[in-house]
Amino acid sequence: MKILFYIFCLFTVFSNAQKIEIGTIEKIQSTILNEEREYWVSLPENYTNEKYETQKYPVVYLLDGEKYFHTVTGMVKNLSNGYYPQIPECIVIAIKNTNRSRDLTPTTVTDLSYASGGADKFETFITDELIPEVNKNYNTLDYKILIGHSFGGLFAFNLVLKTPSPFNSYIVIDPSLWWDNNTTVQKLERTLKTKNFRGTTLFFANANSIGNQKEPSTQHYEHFEAKKNSLKLVEDSVSENLNFYSKYYKEEDHGSVVLPSLIDGLRTIFKGFRINVKELIKNPSILERDYQLLSDKIGFDFKPQSAYLDRVVDLASKQGKKENAEILHDLNKKLYPDNVYLKHKFEL
Amino acid sequence: MKILFYIFCLFTVFSNAQKIEIGTIEKIQSTILNEEREYWVSLPENYTNEKYETQKYPVVYLLDGEKYFHTVTGMVKNLSNGYYPQIPECIVIAIKNTNRSRDLTPTTVTDLSYASGGADKFETFITDELIPEVNKNYNTLDYKILIGHSFGGLFAFNLVLKTPSPFNSYIVIDPSLWWDNNTTVQKLERTLKTKNFRGTTLFFANANSIGNQKEPSTQHYEHFEAKKNSLKLVEDSVSENLNFYSKYYKEEDHGSVVLPSLIDGLRTIFKGFRINVKELIKNPSILERDYQLLSDKIGFDFKPQSAYLDRVVDLASKQGKKENAEILHDLNKKLYPDNVYLKHKFEL
Repeated sequence: MKILFYIFCLFTVFSNAQKIEIGTIEKIQSTILNEEREYWVSLPENYTNEKYETQKYPVVYLLDGEKYFHTVTGMVKNLSNGYYPQIPECIVIAIKNTNRSRDLTPTTVTDLSYASGGADKFETFITDELIPEVNKNYNTLDYKILIGHSFGGLFAFNLVLKTPSPFNSYIVIDPSLWWDNNTTVQKLERTLKTKNFRGTTLFFANANSIGNQKEPSTQHYEHFEAKKNSLKLVEDSVSENLNFYSKYYKEEDHGSVVLPSLIDGLRTIFKGFRINVKELIKNPSILERDYQLLSDKIGFDFKPQSAYLDRVVDLASKQGKKENAEILHDLNKKLYPDNVYLKHKFEL
Repeated sequence: MKILFYIFCLFTVFSNAQKIEIGTIEKIQSTILNEEREYWVSLPENYTNEKYETQKYPVVYLLDGEKYFHTVTGMVKNLSNGYYPQIPECIVIAIKNTNRSRDLTPTTVTDLSYASGGADKFETFITDELIPEVNKNYNTLDYKILIGHSFGGLFAFNLVLKTPSPFNSYIVIDPSLWWDNNTTVQKLERTLKTKNFRGTTLFFANANSIGNQKEPSTQHYEHFEAKKNSLKLVEDSVSENLNFYSKYYKEEDHGSVVLPSLIDGLRTIFKGFRINVKELIKNPSILERDYQLLSDKIGFDFKPQSAYLDRVVDLASKQGKKENAEILHDLNKKLYPDNVYLKHKFEL
């Protein structure tokens, strides 16, 4: 028995060394939903680097988590690294489905073969149970992004309309706005007249659902009409405080639109984040200016991340811009006074 | 000591259960390069499912492997699953860099601060050492795709021009065709006049490199001109046997183009693969027809994958198309006679 255990351990240790890991599976017992829920966690590459121990990160919450965790975490990693990051490094929390249609639909429709109408409860689970747990366990900034597709897009779109809106940014991908006789579109119409959307960003990806259907069903037309109506409503509305972006994907249908719109969505909600690094090392002042513009626009005080500043300082040094390297290093020290390594004098 | 080992093992076993893994790291001692090389391996979800034990898969070889393994494997997974797969399930082999510029550049340029000119050796490593090892260890189809960006794109583009071309399909992303006074463009010009490209597919992603540069350097202009010239050469050439696709990304620069073009490239090289499943379950004969069209075009005899057929059979059954479900199941049996579970009579 002992021998077997040893062999098992050795095998585990051995095989463990060879695996490529991208996250962990966590569980939370939800009182509100009366069930255990799984959420998958991806932490930024620099998260456990003690150099950056006081860094806090925006959090991406992902619906249909088990389906898109792998791809979204890869995209977030690629989009946030290097000299030209387009988004900040983020924590990703992917919520695994148990009863998808129950959780994501805002109203109950009785004549269906699947459950519906549980969105309010699911929202409360997210806001009152999941988010507090994530904030307790990880170094989170209070900037939260929600990503949803189809029913997930319907759910996310409904949260945009809430006051207050529980997330700062939303990536809504071809939402099922036809749900329950366009009930969400009607709600949108009412909300747009009254709500102040300041500080909310919405990226709306609109697929050409009919394009690839030889015999489009009535539901598909309703779907398309509902989306078109909502987009028109938002565009025509006086809610100038909403940072609203939409993109129509002529070549994509309801399923194929997801991957390209994830990239576009992530980049668009952080539009203005990307800085021309060649210009920056010549003129460090553009950093604070550009972050101020971004912060004003999205209604959240974003600061350059410490690891990014380190890379830029390194680049400036390599290119002989020693004075500017020092200015940027000092900014890093000013922004992250508790990062121990930054307290030392900068050595070129 | 023994206690410590036990604790270590327990910790490993315990923490292992919580991790999300997407691949393994393998090593190969290269005689040609005289160094050990790391390659990262992602196997399809169904690879270890004994139901599909005789299934073979196309192989995606990925340059700059450590940078894009995570994202590309996620994309391949999302693009190949569900009822509307756009590409087949694939094995992904990502080659980790040791000396990037040495391996990926086709000629030696002496006045640089980095190594160059090792592409021929690196190609021989891939064709004579890596590919045989992968074919020995995994269930591979003899259909190979190469993905490269920048210097990796330059390397891949040079392989397109070889006779025979070692890969079937190439995703070439904003290649560094300015290298060594456009030497590759000159080679292209000569090759296009003589080579038969039958069976080769090339997706060429062309970024707007100058767009986001406030002060474009001479090199950037050369880069842009070199790409423009190559595209014109290929488009004008009489090499009708090349399956050639190019896309110009007006909004993307040399770095930002990678993610969107990975999605486009993967889908484009398998253009025609996607089948309207709603039509299919009404008329199973379109499956063989569409696969024949695809196979004729790309010069390789592609068959529907067994797991996909299972999903379609399941859908047809659910929607009451029992006769068609049986036809599709019989096709699965015919294509994969050695998959044990398929030998049983189909039970609706």
